[in-house]
Amino acid sequence: MSKAMVVLSGGQDSATCMAWATTMFDEVKAICFNYGQRHVREIVAAHKICGLFDVDLTVKDIPVLAGNPASALTVGGNLSEVDPGSGLPKSFVPGRNLIFLTSAASLAMSQGISSLVTGVCQTDFSGYPDCRRSTIDALEAAINLGMEGAGKVQIHTPLMYLTKAETVWLAARLPKGLDAVGLSWTCYEGGERPCGECPACKLRIEGFKRAGLVDPAL
Amino acid sequence: MSKAMVVLSGGQDSATCMAWATTMFDEVKAICFNYGQRHVREIVAAHKICGLFDVDLTVKDIPVLAGNPASALTVGGNLSEVDPGSGLPKSFVPGRNLIFLTSAASLAMSQGISSLVTGVCQTDFSGYPDCRRSTIDALEAAINLGMEGAGKVQIHTPLMYLTKAETVWLAARLPKGLDAVGLSWTCYEGGERPCGECPACKLRIEGFKRAGLVDPAL
Repeated sequence: MSKAMVVLSGGQDSATCMAWATTMFDEVKAICFNYGQRHVREIVAAHKICGLFDVDLTVKDIPVLAGNPASALTVGGNLSEVDPGSGLPKSFVPGRNLIFLTSAASLAMSQGISSLVTGVCQTDFSGYPDCRRSTIDALEAAINLGMEGAGKVQIHTPLMYLTKAETVWLAARLPKGLDAVGLSWTCYEGGERPCGECPACKLRIEGFKRAGLVDPAL
Repeated sequence: MSKAMVVLSGGQDSATCMAWATTMFDEVKAICFNYGQRHVREIVAAHKICGLFDVDLTVKDIPVLAGNPASALTVGGNLSEVDPGSGLPKSFVPGRNLIFLTSAASLAMSQGISSLVTGVCQTDFSGYPDCRRSTIDALEAAINLGMEGAGKVQIHTPLMYLTKAETVWLAARLPKGLDAVGLSWTCYEGGERPCGECPACKLRIEGFKRAGLVDPAL
């Protein structure tokens, strides 16, 4: 029986990955992380998405990321700006996906699960170096060396080479895919309603526009 | 000015690394992790060691490792046994060093620190695949890809190719090295006094014996 663990943020991409994983694997679990993100309400969305697919969700805190002064997502700051020194978006959280995936791998291995699924994507590249396949490949190698003997982990990235419009179409083709996206939360600001202005909102709006579909969350 | 962050468990090896780092770098900080380990008293030792060197210590929880059923160090179980299925010691915590180092890298980068120091060692190989230089090399590559632009991280492993006796001699040669080791806590059982029987105690006892020195903690 094939098993997978989805790294679920509660956003559009990981919601689509959840629909993909429940189609591809016999048994699916999900893990979600509370790292002091400004848009902590995405965790509420993660719960709703797991409810839709009847999938067990584990939520874990990552205190080392909370309050990280290097990111506008974990402290105050303008989320749309680019850091002039590094050239990285101010919303970048150093180490986030590396910690997410090593944490997920540790938990997955202890449960006999060898497939991880993450919604990272390098096509609609938002400037995050930890969303590239080259980073994922290197991390997969490190995880498999570091846990050698305990099991083998494969990191699936079904959205890696899709544009945001193609991700919307993928969700539309998958069972309950658009329902899941309708429950998802994308906006970095984490207010009552999506701001429509932050980089994450803009990517989502543009994706649905190009796909010619209406965002079911609206 | 050269800066380093020591991943400090509070044990003999990382205590020696702290003495090494304060000799090698202009400014040293330390990070220690509470991951539900049976021998949580090693964190008390970490505080004492940092006090000796007047080094700032950050302690962070790692809830995803706490209670990990795959390890006898985070749940009950015989610490001296080897898992017959995997061939790994039951004290192995899957993903521990990977999570420690990615977490430390994230914090270090946010503080402009590019050198990490860890006491992992593959000579006195206790069966932990995440203590090998090959794992560290792969992880260093993954970290530098995943945080590209934010900075560059180098993972120093000064004990990697030393026997435990050589680690004792190194501590003896470094300023305050043996004092630091005298404050360290090694025993996995985490009782009032070292048990002398667990794999970690045995390695320490054997190391001092072969080095021809008396353990200053006794």
